[in-house]
Parts: sequence; C-alpha cells; structure tokens
Amino acid sequence: MGAERLYIYDTTLRDGQQTQGVQFSTAEKLRIAAALDGLGVDYIEGGWPGANPTDSAFFEQPLQTKAKVAAFGMTKRAGRSAENDDVLAAVMNAGTKAVCLVGKTHDFHVETALGITLEENVENIRASIAHIVADGREALFDAEHFFDGYKANPGYALTCCKAAYEAGARWVVLCDTNGGTLPGEIGQIVAAVIASGIPGDRVGIHTHNDTECAVAGSLAAVMAGARQVQGTLNGLGERCGNANLTTLIPTLLLKEPYASKFDIGVTLDALKGMRKVSRMLDDILNRVPMKQAPYVGASAFAHKAGLHASAILKDPSTYEHVDPGVVGNSRIIPMSNQAGQSNLIRRLSEAGLEVEKGDPALARILERIKQRETDGYSYDTAQASFELLARDELGLLPEFFEVKRYRVTVERRKNKYNQMVSLSEAVVVVKVDGEKKLSVSESMDEAGCDRGPVNALSRALAKDLGPYQEQIDDMRLVDFKVRITQGGTEAVTRVVIDSEDGQGKRWSTVGVSPNIVDASFEALLDAVRWKLVRDGAKG
Amino acid sequence: MGAERLYIYDTTLRDGQQTQGVQFSTAEKLRIAAALDGLGVDYIEGGWPGANPTDSAFFEQPLQTKAKVAAFGMTKRAGRSAENDDVLAAVMNAGTKAVCLVGKTHDFHVETALGITLEENVENIRASIAHIVADGREALFDAEHFFDGYKANPGYALTCCKAAYEAGARWVVLCDTNGGTLPGEIGQIVAAVIASGIPGDRVGIHTHNDTECAVAGSLAAVMAGARQVQGTLNGLGERCGNANLTTLIPTLLLKEPYASKFDIGVTLDALKGMRKVSRMLDDILNRVPMKQAPYVGASAFAHKAGLHASAILKDPSTYEHVDPGVVGNSRIIPMSNQAGQSNLIRRLSEAGLEVEKGDPALARILERIKQRETDGYSYDTAQASFELLARDELGLLPEFFEVKRYRVTVERRKNKYNQMVSLSEAVVVVKVDGEKKLSVSESMDEAGCDRGPVNALSRALAKDLGPYQEQIDDMRLVDFKVRITQGGTEAVTRVVIDSEDGQGKRWSTVGVSPNIVDASFEALLDAVRWKLVRDGAKG
Repeated sequence: MGAERLYIYDTTLRDGQQTQGVQFSTAEKLRIAAALDGLGVDYIEGGWPGANPTDSAFFEQPLQTKAKVAAFGMTKRAGRSAENDDVLAAVMNAGTKAVCLVGKTHDFHVETALGITLEENVENIRASIAHIVADGREALFDAEHFFDGYKANPGYALTCCKAAYEAGARWVVLCDTNGGTLPGEIGQIVAAVIASGIPGDRVGIHTHNDTECAVAGSLAAVMAGARQVQGTLNGLGERCGNANLTTLIPTLLLKEPYASKFDIGVTLDALKGMRKVSRMLDDILNRVPMKQAPYVGASAFAHKAGLHASAILKDPSTYEHVDPGVVGNSRIIPMSNQAGQSNLIRRLSEAGLEVEKGDPALARILERIKQRETDGYSYDTAQASFELLARDELGLLPEFFEVKRYRVTVERRKNKYNQMVSLSEAVVVVKVDGEKKLSVSESMDEAGCDRGPVNALSRALAKDLGPYQEQIDDMRLVDFKVRITQGGTEAVTRVVIDSEDGQGKRWSTVGVSPNIVDASFEALLDAVRWKLVRDGAKG
Repeated sequence: MGAERLYIYDTTLRDGQQTQGVQFSTAEKLRIAAALDGLGVDYIEGGWPGANPTDSAFFEQPLQTKAKVAAFGMTKRAGRSAENDDVLAAVMNAGTKAVCLVGKTHDFHVETALGITLEENVENIRASIAHIVADGREALFDAEHFFDGYKANPGYALTCCKAAYEAGARWVVLCDTNGGTLPGEIGQIVAAVIASGIPGDRVGIHTHNDTECAVAGSLAAVMAGARQVQGTLNGLGERCGNANLTTLIPTLLLKEPYASKFDIGVTLDALKGMRKVSRMLDDILNRVPMKQAPYVGASAFAHKAGLHASAILKDPSTYEHVDPGVVGNSRIIPMSNQAGQSNLIRRLSEAGLEVEKGDPALARILERIKQRETDGYSYDTAQASFELLARDELGLLPEFFEVKRYRVTVERRKNKYNQMVSLSEAVVVVKVDGEKKLSVSESMDEAGCDRGPVNALSRALAKDLGPYQEQIDDMRLVDFKVRITQGGTEAVTRVVIDSEDGQGKRWSTVGVSPNIVDASFEALLDAVRWKLVRDGAKG
C-alpha cells in the first residue's frame, strides 16, 4: 500500500501539563507514556528537563518505548554559546533520542519578550539546532507564534524556520501558540511555507483550541502538506488546550481523504483502546470525563431523539458517523431494553458470568443500575461493584459477613509539645459465622502520623474477619477518589476506591452517600467482598 | 459600512435539548430565550410544538422578542395532504413567525427509515413548505443528512433542496446530521449547492461536533457562501453537541475575514455578556462550567507557563488572541511551581496587594508556596488560600480567632425500624477575643438525612464566631473536591472547597492532610478567614 507516513507527536506530558490544575507526578507520567506507546504514537514529549524536579525525574527513568522520547527546552540565550547555555545543557543531558527546542519567529516577540535583535534570535536558533544535530540527536524546532509572526512579517518568520531547517532540524513545527488562527489561514500559510522551500515531510503543526478549531487547523495543515501533527490526549494544554489527539487520531485513521492517503503508525487494533486511554487520563487527573467528547465520550453514541433511536435499530449507520466499537466505545439508546441487554450480557461475560439472552435477571440488573445511577453511582470504572451487584441479582453472591454498626472519631487537639495533632479511631462490629466480632483500630502510621478516618475504618474492618482473614491480609487501598455529584435532587459524595492485592491485581469499587465516611465504607466493603468472591471464598 | 448580513439561528431550546440528561422546564426555556434575545441572535428555535408538553407550553407564552421565534417540526407524511397532517398542524398552530421543518435528502434514509419512494419524499417537502408560505409564515427547510446524502447521490439531495427553495423556503439549511463531514468537504459541497442555483443568502449550515469540527465546518460553509449559521449555547446537542455559538459568535464578530465582511446582528456591547449567558445556562443545567471552553471558560485566559506569564506582564497580546474583556472574561495568572516573581507580583496586585519588585517578602512567599506544593497543596485554583498565605507573609492577616480543638464522630447503626442510618456530630472549640467558645452541631438536613462530618464541622465552626458571626452567616459551601496526591513520600488528601456568599461571589480554598477531615477543616477555616478579610473585619 502506497500510503504516505504521517507522524503523531504527543505533548500531553509537556504542553498538557500547562493545563490549569494539572501537575503530574513522575509515576503518573510513566503510566501515561506507557499508554501512549501502546497506542502507537511516534513521539512522546516528556517535559522540560531542568525546569522542575518532576520533569527531571521522569527522564531519569529507564524507559523502554517504541516511540521516540523527546526532551523539550528553548533555544540558547543570546550572549553565550550553545555549549555554554546551562538551560540547554540540562535538556541535552536528559539523553533523549529527540530534542525539541522552542524559539521565537515573530519579530514583535523577539523585541518585546526577549529584548534582543532579530539577527541574534536567528543565530540562537541556528546554533542551538546545530548543537543538537552535532550530538547525533534528532532535532525539532517549535516555531513559536509562527502564524501571527508570518502575518506580521512573513520574511522574518520564514528566515527563522529556514535557519532551523538548514541547521539540520528533522522537523520545523509551525505553532499557533495563541490559538487565534482559523483553519483556512493555517492551510494557506502552511502551503506558503512549503512553497518557500521547506519540504512538507519536514513540517509539523501545533495548534491550540482558543477558537475551538485546533483539530480542524491540524487537518487543514495536513491537507496543505504538513506531515507531523502535535497534540495531547483529551485536548489538555495551556488555556483552552492543544489539538485533541483523542479526536484527531480516529479521524486521521478512519476518515477520507486522510484514511487512504496516510499511514499514521496507530493501528485499527490499537485504536480500540482509545476510550480506555482517555478514561485513564481522566482517572489520573480525577476529572469527570467529558460526556460529549467526540468518539470517546459517554454521549458520543447516545441517541436521545425518538426518531433517531428507532432508525438506529433498523441500521446504526443512519445516525452514527462511525461504529462506536472502533474506538472501544459503545452505543447508548436510552429506554431501549434490547440494546441495553446485549450490552449488559457482554459486560457480564467479561466478568466471567455467562447469562443467556432473555434471562429475567438481566432486566432486574438493568433496572437496579439505572436506579443507582440516578442516585449518583457510576459503574463506568467501578467494575468490581458492578460485578457484585450483578452477582447479587443472579443469586451468586454469598453473604460472607454482616456489618452490624461502626463508629469513627477524629479528634484534633494540642499535644504536650503544644503542636496540633489529630487522631482517628474506628470501631467496627461484624457478624461472621453467627459470631459477633468487635474490632477497634487507630490510624497511626509508623511515623506516628494520623492517616484519617477511612484508614482507621479500613483497618478495623480488616482486623478480624474470622475465616476470611487470610484472604484479605494482602489487600491494600491504593487510590481513593471523591466527587460531589447529584443524587436525586441533593448533592451526594461518590467515592471510588482502588484496591490491590499481593500479586498486583487491582480492582475498583464505588460507594455513594451524602456522608463521605459512609460512602467510603460502602466502597471498602465492596472491595473486601469482591476479593473474597474472586478467591472463591465460601459464604 | 457595506457589511453583508449573516444570520444566527439558535437551536439551544430544540436540538440543545437532545443532550443526554438535559430537559428544560418551560420557565427555563423562557429565561434562555430572553438571554438569547439580549445577545442579539436572529432566530430562536423554541422546540417542537406537539412533541411534548413542555415544548407545547413554551409556545403558549406571550413572548416579546426582537428575534424571530421558530417552531420546529417535520415535513408532512406521505398519503395525506399538508393540511390534513396532524403533526404538522400542531407545529403550525404554535403561530410563530418562522416555521422550520426537517425532511430527508439522503436516498438511503428515505428508503430505509421512511420506507417511501424518492418521489413521494420530494413531494412531501414541496407541499409542506408551500403550506407554510401560503399561511404567510417564513419557511425554513432543514435538509437532514444533506452532506452524506450529497456524497451518495448528489442529484437527489439537490432535488430535495430545490423543491424546498422553489416552494418558497426562505432558508434551505444544509445539515450534517451525523456530524461526520470534515470542514474541507463541507466547504466544497456548500459551494456546489450554491453553484447549482440556490443563492448563498438562502443557504444555512447546521453542523454537529462528532469530529470536534462543528465550529470549523460552519466557518467553512460561510466562506463558501452560506449566510445562516445554526448552533447552540455551550455547544449543547445530540451526541457530541451542535456547533457552539458561544465560540462562533465571538469568532465571527472579532476575527478576519469574517469581522469586516459581515454584520451578524450581535453587537460588541452585547458580546460582553457572552460569558454570563454561558454561565447562566450551566447554572440552569447544574453543570460545572467547562474551564477550557474557548473565550468564556475560566482557563481561556489563564497563563500557567512561566515564560508566558512574564511576557503577558509586558504585553498581554503576546499570549492572548483576543482581549478577555470583549466576552466578559478575565485573565488568570495562576501560581504554580513553573512561575516566578513577576507572576507573583501580578497575582498579588489582582488581589489588591501592591508589592514592589525586590520586596524580600516575595521570595518568602514563593519559597512557602514551593514547600507547600511539595507537600501536596495546589494554588492553581485556590486563589483565596493563596491570598491568605501571601497576607500572612506580608503581615496583613489579622488573627480573627484561634481553633483550640475539634472532634467529629460518625456513627452508623440500625435505627428502631431496623434500617441502617448514620449520624455525624462535631464539636469545635475556638478562642475569639480572649473568650473560649464551644459549639456542637449535627449534620442532619431538613429531610432527616445525615450530610456527613465535613458538614457537621462546618456548621459547628460557623455556629458562634462572636463578633464575626454576622459576616459569615451568608456563606455556603457549594463544591468540594478531593484527591489523593503525593505529599513528600506519603499519599495525602487534598481538599478544595468552593464557597459562595449571598451576592453570588465565589472563592476557593485548599487544605492538605493524610486525614481527609483535617484537610477539609483546613480548607473550611481558610474559606471563613478569606471572607472576613474581604469584608474588612478587624482582628
């Protein structure tokens, strides 16, 4: 097949981190990088080594990716050589295969923001790119404010880009830094750049979403000849975000004229993981997934209008531009038991529960999920709680133990050294095998630090479960997410708990209540019960 | 000025209501219609009279709008006359100046979904439009699935549109119903329609956001000659939503080549209310406003990157595509570990704290923020906690009161009806004006439902603050966000609380602790202290 190569450059870990409220830990960066690599992107920009401890720590990890990892930085400053610029040195020292440097191309910025001459800036670009190339690395030049610069002074903007290209940059990336350039203009300017002598397969595009046109601007640039597209998962990024790769990747892979013209490295098989990757990122950020997100959103294939829903049953292509399964998403037809049931059978089967079509338990499970979702529950990620609910309706859930009551107290006061300290204490009363067991726990860790009421409850609950004790001994709570959500007419708290066992197996459970401690306890109970089911404990 | 007229047609109340989870009441529809009219849109599509009681009730209201109100319906069914179609009659009976009917233009749909002949469908369109025109109303034809239809059978799709045009339709609206057509193709097909003989000032565009290109598709259609744009506020709508007028209106009004070429009815003065209208809709829907929304989002003019922030201080146009004030929005320079002193001075100045460059307090504030961010705090959104921290270092924070200790208990047990119920109780001890005050509160709401330990603490804290009581009486907790984050080497809980006063002013505060109750209490305390500072209370 004669498809031309189009490269995907992900900057979730760098420009994505410029989103208000986003600050990845090194461990989170590693998880995201692994997901991006699984998807099949060509480049993963990891951050700016030297700019902050987290970014620096990321590049110290031994990464095994198919994708090229890129370190980001800026062109050297005026008045010193590339070799003697310590900011650039920190970027080079990260030792990545690819190095991407941002530099000015808009005369106004050179003079206003940098305060150097136009010639000095060109020389900074040339020398910095040459320095990377001389070191045997792949060099990328992010031409900052290129489109605004080109409109103000096309000659100077092109001179900057050519300096990078001629110094050996593999890619000259045209950036619409302020996000204000509309797609039509982006297409015209990219075409002009290519006509000026920088070949399209050396030109990249980097757009922002300030006019809601970042995706369309990227598509226009590709039509004009650019062959690298930069963006982020879920459209994270400074201000309104960057071009959304979660949308762009399926569009480039599935839609004409792109689909037959280009090979983008991402396979149709990998594309099926798109929804999952998008949700993983939301989970890491503790964000509510955007329901209306193209392709991957929960509403992206939800058909509410009555006329639409009935046509969909005749032929899904009547109201769907692509099949939801291609991105790992699924169709929602509200009030349609038929569609709902086949969905449910599939999900139960994934949990090892084979249920025949027409089983009356299916309708009961759907009804209970619907009611619980109205109350504020969400079973999207809490697969373990979903399984327990289904098992209960199917008569496959033993009652291992019963919680009779609990009490938890948090007290904060001054200690004898006149420091404010807190102490949490929990009492849990359970009935196991007909026997009542009272357990009490504090929540102090080894360092004498109070870990709070949920920790205390978790310890008290796990302290003495009689015959089940052994099976839960290797469980630990690894993540805890809380959201305020609407349950009926009142705001309630939804808690999702991730637990892990000794083998590294993870599972998620959910609890909902106006009381955060109750919601947490419900999720904790589900976590324990799911572990017992999984290990085949007898009730 | 020779600007050409471009018409804005809003369908928030009709297609916007197809959003999953959205169901407007009649009163809400009236509020939204008034806001749209204030903005200056040309048409307000109110719903489908006869389709449901709310839509019918809306059209019974005596509406005084400058905008034309349109009733929506579908072309008459085959086998009866337009006069004898009861569904069409209900639409006509709404008595609106404009009537918009959707009809098929894609041969596949005529045969699959309707099951009638291609000729019958053309006749249904012709007769229905002629019926509206004969009644002296303005007729619009929504050409459903037009772009897919044109690609499959251009001749038939055009025949349908021409039937409407020749029967006297003021507008033939080309709909990308499934949202899968990319902007390039939309532009080409709109140009072909106009070339076929339907003048551009009789052509409208209706796009959906399934590829995140609804806005760009509308812009492409206008460039190709269409002179009516349909869309919704905040991009509400079926599946991924409709073209977002909250983005399109500022773009058409502010950006070239549209700004000088067209008059869109919306004035620059009305545009200043755009952010407010967008928030009003979110309020009605009880949705969290999208921070990254173009133009109107809270992050749309937030500059996180250190390099950006320092350039913004020299000249805002360095990193802003338009001035935030034109849409009633404002600039945010958040604190984060990526920012420096200039950023800090700017942010302090926004809080009314003028500090000279070089003041030693600046370094202390930055150092403390850095330390706290390492501990798990985040001041990106928690502006109020940031201000308190800065005031403390600047010696501008009175000690209003001192919390000596608190205790909160959550108990869950069976009540006398054998139901599990919970009860939270908090005791807070504060010292105000040298006087020790003990307050105790439960967290029961009016319905007898326990709202949990944070609520109980909040009530106990606010119960008796002596001379400050009056100032905090109108405060309420409106949002509460929790996440687990890394503080040093251990996981800690970060709580961000949004509070609101009687005037609708909101502020955000943050607390961090391994103990979720402690973290919440810290954020609560900051919320109260900030309110006292803002109201000029004396310590």
